[in-house]
Amino acid sequence: MDRQARIDVLFNPRSIAVIGASSTRGKLGNDVMRNLIDSGYQGRIYPINPNAGEILGQKAFRSIEEVPADVDVAVIVIPAKFVLKTVEDCGKKGVKALVIITAGFKESGKEGEKVEKKLVELAEKYEMVIQGPNCLGITNTAAPYNASFSAGTPGKGTIAFASQSGALMTGILDWSLMEKIGFSKFVSLGNKAHLDEADFIEAFGRDPNSTFLLLYIESVVDGKKFMEACKKVIPHKPIFIVKSGVSVAGARAASSHTGSLAGSDMAYDVAFKQSGVRRAQDMASLFDVASVFDDMNLPTGKRVAIITNAGGPGILTTDACEEGGLEIAQFTSETTEFLKSNLPSAASVNNPIDALGTALPEDYELCIEAALKDQNVDSVLVLLTPQAMTKVTDTAKVIVDAHKKNPDKPLLAVFMGGNSMVYPRIVLTTGGIPVFDFPERAVHALSELYKYTVSRDRLKDEKIPKFKVDMKKVERIIAEVRKDKRSVLLGNEAHAIAEAYDIPVARIRLATTAEEAKSLAEELGYPIVLKISSPDIIHKSDIGGIVVGLKTPEEIEIHFNEILDNATKHMPEAKIYGVDVQEMAEKGKELIIGCSRDVQFGPLIMFGTGGIYVNFLKDISFRLAPMTRTDASELIMETKMGKLLSGVRGEAPSDINAIQDTILKISQLVTDFEEIVELDINPAFGYENGKGVSAVDVKITIGE
Amino acid sequence: MDRQARIDVLFNPRSIAVIGASSTRGKLGNDVMRNLIDSGYQGRIYPINPNAGEILGQKAFRSIEEVPADVDVAVIVIPAKFVLKTVEDCGKKGVKALVIITAGFKESGKEGEKVEKKLVELAEKYEMVIQGPNCLGITNTAAPYNASFSAGTPGKGTIAFASQSGALMTGILDWSLMEKIGFSKFVSLGNKAHLDEADFIEAFGRDPNSTFLLLYIESVVDGKKFMEACKKVIPHKPIFIVKSGVSVAGARAASSHTGSLAGSDMAYDVAFKQSGVRRAQDMASLFDVASVFDDMNLPTGKRVAIITNAGGPGILTTDACEEGGLEIAQFTSETTEFLKSNLPSAASVNNPIDALGTALPEDYELCIEAALKDQNVDSVLVLLTPQAMTKVTDTAKVIVDAHKKNPDKPLLAVFMGGNSMVYPRIVLTTGGIPVFDFPERAVHALSELYKYTVSRDRLKDEKIPKFKVDMKKVERIIAEVRKDKRSVLLGNEAHAIAEAYDIPVARIRLATTAEEAKSLAEELGYPIVLKISSPDIIHKSDIGGIVVGLKTPEEIEIHFNEILDNATKHMPEAKIYGVDVQEMAEKGKELIIGCSRDVQFGPLIMFGTGGIYVNFLKDISFRLAPMTRTDASELIMETKMGKLLSGVRGEAPSDINAIQDTILKISQLVTDFEEIVELDINPAFGYENGKGVSAVDVKITIGE
Repeated sequence: MDRQARIDVLFNPRSIAVIGASSTRGKLGNDVMRNLIDSGYQGRIYPINPNAGEILGQKAFRSIEEVPADVDVAVIVIPAKFVLKTVEDCGKKGVKALVIITAGFKESGKEGEKVEKKLVELAEKYEMVIQGPNCLGITNTAAPYNASFSAGTPGKGTIAFASQSGALMTGILDWSLMEKIGFSKFVSLGNKAHLDEADFIEAFGRDPNSTFLLLYIESVVDGKKFMEACKKVIPHKPIFIVKSGVSVAGARAASSHTGSLAGSDMAYDVAFKQSGVRRAQDMASLFDVASVFDDMNLPTGKRVAIITNAGGPGILTTDACEEGGLEIAQFTSETTEFLKSNLPSAASVNNPIDALGTALPEDYELCIEAALKDQNVDSVLVLLTPQAMTKVTDTAKVIVDAHKKNPDKPLLAVFMGGNSMVYPRIVLTTGGIPVFDFPERAVHALSELYKYTVSRDRLKDEKIPKFKVDMKKVERIIAEVRKDKRSVLLGNEAHAIAEAYDIPVARIRLATTAEEAKSLAEELGYPIVLKISSPDIIHKSDIGGIVVGLKTPEEIEIHFNEILDNATKHMPEAKIYGVDVQEMAEKGKELIIGCSRDVQFGPLIMFGTGGIYVNFLKDISFRLAPMTRTDASELIMETKMGKLLSGVRGEAPSDINAIQDTILKISQLVTDFEEIVELDINPAFGYENGKGVSAVDVKITIGE
Repeated sequence: MDRQARIDVLFNPRSIAVIGASSTRGKLGNDVMRNLIDSGYQGRIYPINPNAGEILGQKAFRSIEEVPADVDVAVIVIPAKFVLKTVEDCGKKGVKALVIITAGFKESGKEGEKVEKKLVELAEKYEMVIQGPNCLGITNTAAPYNASFSAGTPGKGTIAFASQSGALMTGILDWSLMEKIGFSKFVSLGNKAHLDEADFIEAFGRDPNSTFLLLYIESVVDGKKFMEACKKVIPHKPIFIVKSGVSVAGARAASSHTGSLAGSDMAYDVAFKQSGVRRAQDMASLFDVASVFDDMNLPTGKRVAIITNAGGPGILTTDACEEGGLEIAQFTSETTEFLKSNLPSAASVNNPIDALGTALPEDYELCIEAALKDQNVDSVLVLLTPQAMTKVTDTAKVIVDAHKKNPDKPLLAVFMGGNSMVYPRIVLTTGGIPVFDFPERAVHALSELYKYTVSRDRLKDEKIPKFKVDMKKVERIIAEVRKDKRSVLLGNEAHAIAEAYDIPVARIRLATTAEEAKSLAEELGYPIVLKISSPDIIHKSDIGGIVVGLKTPEEIEIHFNEILDNATKHMPEAKIYGVDVQEMAEKGKELIIGCSRDVQFGPLIMFGTGGIYVNFLKDISFRLAPMTRTDASELIMETKMGKLLSGVRGEAPSDINAIQDTILKISQLVTDFEEIVELDINPAFGYENGKGVSAVDVKITIGE
């Protein structure tokens, strides 16, 4: 039985043991028992308590062994020191899933962390899964059961919710009961010792009662597993995640541009994007999105029709649409003609349709139907303000009917106002029409659903390209560097690695004598750049360690010696390996391509405008490696440089294909060699279409 | 009696005539009468109706002349065709302010516009003010009176609200009654024929019952007047404006960089910024801001202390603070020591303070008091989630008491949850503590108030610098251009205007013969640039119309003729004025400085990164002219170029003073000469500190 099958048992157990069940009010073991019973659980409940007897009308047992039947799930609410033994007992009993509510493990320090590891070992040994420890428990409203100590059971609904913060869940639960928001699953992730967010995402994805996934997380346990789970689910269900900790500056010191520009949270942004997840800032507004998703089909495009009985709100909604990445639909001439001949002459028949303050339900009806039928319209927003002649409830009914006749396109209502809108809003809601009090919220919900369809459609089954490369050569170079006890590669080493991966690069050869430099210059071809080769000298030009544009062997001879003299004079302590002899690349568009490594998600590739002002222009974008050609193309086009490369102001377009190839080869390189912790190419020159790209300065740092 | 004094009468009339008063339910004249009576107006009410008699218990008169006493305000709700005559009657009667509810004026077409103009002439003639026409009316809850036809009277409060959309007001009113949000004034601006937003802003500013200004507008009538009114009010009261129409692309075609980059809405953004107004997107969230403003002092800084009983919400709040431009306070060691010795060891005593899920009211109390006392803290956010041991109501009481003891700093509560929070929230609200259900809203309110204090403090009484310039020379050049029936200035003309305003410029002289060119080159000094001078040739380099770096008279001679030949060959139709002989400027940082003209707000100055990629880098910012030295400095520093100019990567800082001077001189130039409709300097080169700046290519277009 695999992990997911065991989660299925956790979701739909035939029997649940509550280890630490209690008759005493105020004890967690009592709360769990009461929730289990009150939630209407139909399976067998086995309270476990050393005193046995009866707990809340259920026969209790001294230990799990004593239970005379199979136990699918055990909920553990006993003190931490007894948990390890109990988990072993559960394993022996053949329990399939454990919900460990008990706290006092990893979150309490080194000792607790050790015990938590042992818990996981036991789970693996006995083929169990563990939710928690240090969690609130779990509710499945479809089963139904509530195996948690929360104050109340969530309402039934289609939102699958998982949270890394128990307290946040408590608040959301209480609020959701008041706001009448329902859930299919309500899962407290706790310490995520065994089952993590990725497991639940995959399980929610397969769960027929869950249609909309909502998570609160502070981190992910395993980046790759997380992305794979999301990619599996996204084609069928939207995933919205509130990931906190954005502002906590990364403690890791970064020596590369890419590292310092990536920041601590960028990898999450990119991972979410590449796996189709929508990141949200604000939990409350996601329930709006879920409710629209529940009631309506997804919009098939971004073109919105707005129908209003007042100009001001119409303009506000237009602004909000554009802000939210939606478009104001251009009606077909049929629609405008129809509206023109059916609305008063003062009405505006272009989008937004202003049916005027005198608009009657019939007017709304004809506008809505026309908009729903228009092939240039993907969704419809109906605004109503309570004016003297407005028949609010009848208009609500008209909206409900219009949706029934044309259920394909999303139809949302914004009824602005207070008490006079209470009943009409009930008419709408029970008629399956999501209704809002201000346009911004309606537009936000629609925009998020549209963006979900975009990220869903983005996830194509595209292959990761594989280039023919010389891995052996890279291995050899890295081994040499290690032998030399360095982590920063010399220029010639870094450029050789790039060459081994077929990355077009200004070739560098290391010369230790002037004679050697001259013969290397002949080999590479003039003009030539000479550069001091020393891992200790970072700012080479400041000490006269670089000379460019050398055209003759005589010049090479003179400057070779001069550079060495300058280096020994200015930095007598520096370890000098010789002088780099480098091809001089023709100038092109200055690019930066780099890679840093994220703890959770691995290699993070950066592309953007290169040169000395990288940190100030910040015209950069990121993707995680390995990546597809589409990823590489999007990575380039997200930057302003991408637009420049496409050719602006009549310039010939640059060789974007060659740049894509370079990015993909770097992606392959850092995927193949995990020891490459940082890589910066700055600048690489991009040339006209067909003329390729050239990496001028490659820097590589290796780790353990 | 000036305009503002007449608005005071409008706000506090001793008597109101309702012209068009009616006994018939459903008529606007009846609604207004009922609102007036129901709102508890204590002055005299004179219903005017041709049938006289009695209306809603008040003696009616056939006409305003018949009223046997003075009338301060007349509310007009009669058909449009009778309004003009009635206004004249009111003028003769000595009425001081008119509220014209009647529609059918400017908004209905040319004819209505003419009548509306006549209304204003009458108002001016008889020294009256007009609100409207085509408006809902006005409510002053402090007077109290409601002279509008809205369904209900707003609650009493301190928010002064004015709206250009009547329908939006109706929705807001209905909603505010449900949400128990109060207003001091509730003003429908209508067509703004006479009194406009600026008049009401100034009046609200002087009104002792209004502390918080909130406006919905689609445009302003008079940019300068609007900004002056705002600047008067901002030192004492915050102004928040929702300005819609952001996304409606400007129809005006722009030929300059500055014009095309400014867009149609940029001038509003800049005008709001320069006059201290906060622009908002979302109306509803502003009521949160108002409510916190009502209850609390303004924060004196951006450092927030967060106190929570759960980690997750604490992190979410931290993120929201940073997003909103607030800072997480660094506690003094005293505070952390105090917390350490008074909280459980597992608690986090750094900000956010996590008093743990077990936190009792006493724990909250000591945390809040410590935070309020800490000199590094400007405001305090208290978060509570309903956990097993949480005493919600007692904690609410503790918060109220803490605020009473230390009322100086803002103290906001976030009680997450639903039904279990209803009573505790009442305890907080009646105790004067603003309370929210999610942290984002609380942080938003705090952040907006903090930003208000920043924009308020920004408005210093700083002089507009005046440089000694040669206006006569500019007048002469413009007169010449006009005589030549051109709107685009030749290079030598534009550069001469810059010279006249003492703007450091690469000098240009127009040569019509090679001999002349040679002698001008001697005068300007080598190297020299030659450029074809023709308003018809835009892309000069494409036709071989530019040669740079000429060093001898011989080169001048050759290229002078070549350039003329190229021009006549490639563009035989072009009118050619000769060849520009131009100084060659040394290369520096490439800047753009430009000006376009906004219909409402006048000259809009742009600064940023210049060169050929201006449109793609979009590293630009804007200010309205005339401007202060602080404005110019901020304008520069808002761009990335500003940071580059300050000196990065060990570079010497550039001559920012000289750049400021140049911006200020351009500001003076376009303020002095309204006929300059567009001006672009691209590039100007910025040099090292002390070495100034040089305008290399100046383009000027003049209008009527």
